[in-house]
Amino acid sequence: MTVTVAIDGMGGDHGPQVTVRAAREFLRRRDDVRVVLVGIEDRIRPFLAGSDDPRLVVRHAGEVVGMDESPALALRAKKNSSMRVAIDLVGGGEADACVSAGNTGALMAISRFVLKMLPGIDRPAICTVLPTVSGHVHVLDLGANVDCSPEHLLQFAIMGASLAGAIEHKDRPSVGLLNIGEEAIKGNEVVKRAAELLKDSGLNFIGNVEGDGLYKGHAEVVVCDGFVGNVALKASEGLVEMLSAFLRQEFGRNPLTRLAALIALPVLGHFRRRFDPRRYNGASLLGLKGIVVKSHGSADVFSFGHALDRAADAVRAGVLERISLRLARQAGQGPGREDR
Amino acid sequence: MTVTVAIDGMGGDHGPQVTVRAAREFLRRRDDVRVVLVGIEDRIRPFLAGSDDPRLVVRHAGEVVGMDESPALALRAKKNSSMRVAIDLVGGGEADACVSAGNTGALMAISRFVLKMLPGIDRPAICTVLPTVSGHVHVLDLGANVDCSPEHLLQFAIMGASLAGAIEHKDRPSVGLLNIGEEAIKGNEVVKRAAELLKDSGLNFIGNVEGDGLYKGHAEVVVCDGFVGNVALKASEGLVEMLSAFLRQEFGRNPLTRLAALIALPVLGHFRRRFDPRRYNGASLLGLKGIVVKSHGSADVFSFGHALDRAADAVRAGVLERISLRLARQAGQGPGREDR
Repeated sequence: MTVTVAIDGMGGDHGPQVTVRAAREFLRRRDDVRVVLVGIEDRIRPFLAGSDDPRLVVRHAGEVVGMDESPALALRAKKNSSMRVAIDLVGGGEADACVSAGNTGALMAISRFVLKMLPGIDRPAICTVLPTVSGHVHVLDLGANVDCSPEHLLQFAIMGASLAGAIEHKDRPSVGLLNIGEEAIKGNEVVKRAAELLKDSGLNFIGNVEGDGLYKGHAEVVVCDGFVGNVALKASEGLVEMLSAFLRQEFGRNPLTRLAALIALPVLGHFRRRFDPRRYNGASLLGLKGIVVKSHGSADVFSFGHALDRAADAVRAGVLERISLRLARQAGQGPGREDR
Repeated sequence: MTVTVAIDGMGGDHGPQVTVRAAREFLRRRDDVRVVLVGIEDRIRPFLAGSDDPRLVVRHAGEVVGMDESPALALRAKKNSSMRVAIDLVGGGEADACVSAGNTGALMAISRFVLKMLPGIDRPAICTVLPTVSGHVHVLDLGANVDCSPEHLLQFAIMGASLAGAIEHKDRPSVGLLNIGEEAIKGNEVVKRAAELLKDSGLNFIGNVEGDGLYKGHAEVVVCDGFVGNVALKASEGLVEMLSAFLRQEFGRNPLTRLAALIALPVLGHFRRRFDPRRYNGASLLGLKGIVVKSHGSADVFSFGHALDRAADAVRAGVLERISLRLARQAGQGPGREDR
C-alpha cells in the first residue's frame, strides 16, 4: 500500500523552501509514499528543478493563510488556500493525510469543517511525542482546548492510547493523568472526576502523573487540559533553549574552554541528537475523520521530514480505524446501551 | 537589626542531619542572623557537637509531622510538632521567619491557622525563583491553589511584585500573566478576565507570557494558577534531570568520551553551578501575616542554606510591609471607596 500525503506547500515560516525540499527528501527516503504538493505553482517549481519523480505532483492553490490570520476568516474567505486544498484532498479521498506548518488555529478550524469529527469526539486534540529517560511519551492536549471537561480528558485518553497503540504495536499502552500530586485526592475537580472516568474506561490507566513524571516515562500516554499541556511543552522548549545558550556561553568563555568544547564536541553532538526537538516535530490533530499533522512553523527540512514521516506512519498503522474501534467499544459500554 | 529564623529541625527527608548543619553554616556565613532550632532535642544535639554559638538556641518539640500526613490532622492533632512550634514562634513574635522542609500542605494549613491571612488576600500562594537567560523570575502560584479566580491571580501579582520589588530594590518590577499565546484573545475565561484586572491594577503589567517566556526572562514576576505553575515547575525539574542523565551517559560511553569529560569538567561544572536548582531552593508562602519559607523536602545542606537566606532576606527587605502597603493602596482604589 502506498500512502499519499498532501503537503501545504506554503505553510510555515519558510514555505516552499522547506516544504518542497523536505518532500523530495521524503520520497528519496521512502518508497511507500507519494506526495501532492499544494501551493502557488510559480513559487514551488523553482525548488523542483532536476526532479522527475512521478510520485510527486503539484496542485496549484493561489491563496495562502497567514500565520497570524484569524482562523474564522481563513475558513470563510480562503477557499483556495494551500492549506484548505490540502485538507480537501484528504476529505475527497485523493490523499491519506495532510501535513502543514501553517497557522494552527486555521488548520484546526478548516480540518474540523472539512473532515468532521469522529462520532463520540467533541473537539480535536493536539498530540505530540516527547522524549523520556526510557523512550518517549505521547502527550495531549497541547493547546487546542483551554477548558476541558472530565469527558474531554477521557476522549483524549482514548485517542492517545489508540495512537500510541497503533504506532508502537502495543495492545494496552499505559495512560496517565497529568496532575500536581500522585495521590488521588490531589488536583482540581475536573481532574478528580476524569480519574474516575479513566478508572472505569477499560484503558490501562495508571493514575496521576506529575510534571516531572512526564520525562521520567511514568506513562506511555499522558492526558491534560490544553492550557496546562501547552504551558508545560513551551516551558520545556524555553528551558532547553536557555540551557543550550548557557552551555555555548560556558564553552566559548576563553581559548581553554573552546579547546575543551572541541574535544567534547562529538559527545555533545551525540547528546544533542538524542533529544533534538526536530526529531519530535509533527503533532497529530486527533479526533478528526482524517489524518492531519501540524509541523512547527519554524521547522527546517530535517524537522519537516519528521512531520511527514509521522503522517505516513499514522496512516500505515491504521490510527484512525483504531480510534474509531475504541470509541465504538466505549459507546457500547456506556449507560443505557443494554443492547450491545 | 538581627533577624531571628525559626527552623523546623525535623522537616524534610533528612531531618536534623541537614537542618542543623545548614543552620550552623548559615550562622558562620552571616552575622546578622540568629536561629531557633525546633525539634526533638535528643535528635538535634548530636549535630551540635563543638558548637557554642550563642546565636543558636534549641527549642524542644516532641512531635513530627509526617511527609504524607493529612494537613488537617497535622493541624488538629500535633500541637507540639516541630513545624507547629516553629510557626508559633513567628506568631508570638519570638522569631521573624520560619523555614521548613516538611509537608507542604501541613505547613500551609498551620501557617494559615496560626499567622492568619493579610487583609485582602484570600489564600496563600507559593512563590519561587527560577533562572532565566538574563537573570531570574519570581513565579507564583506553584501549587497551593488549584482553582483560581481572576481576583486570586491579581492578588498573586500584587504579592509577587511586592516580593520581587522589596528583595531586588525595584520600584515597579514587570508582571506577566502565564498564558498559551501572547495575544490578549488567547487563553481561558479566567486568564482573560485576570488580564483586564491586571491592566487596571497600577502594576507594571506587560501582558501575557508563554511557557518559554518564563525562561526567556520576558517578565520579572509571572503569575499563574497553582495547577499550571506546579506542572510547569515539575516538568522543568524532570527535564533537567533527564538531560543530566543523558549527558552523564554520553560522557560515560567509552574511555575516549570519559577523557573528553575530564577535559570538559571545569566548563560543565561552571555550567551546572549556574542553573543548579539547589541555588533556587526556598519557596515563599505569600499572603500570610508572617514570613514562611518552604524548602524542598530532599534539600541538602547547601540547598537548605539557600532557603534560610531567602527567609532572612525577605525579613530584611521588609517584604511583609511592602505587600501590606500595596494591598492597602489597592483597596483604596477599589469601587465604592470614594473616601480615600
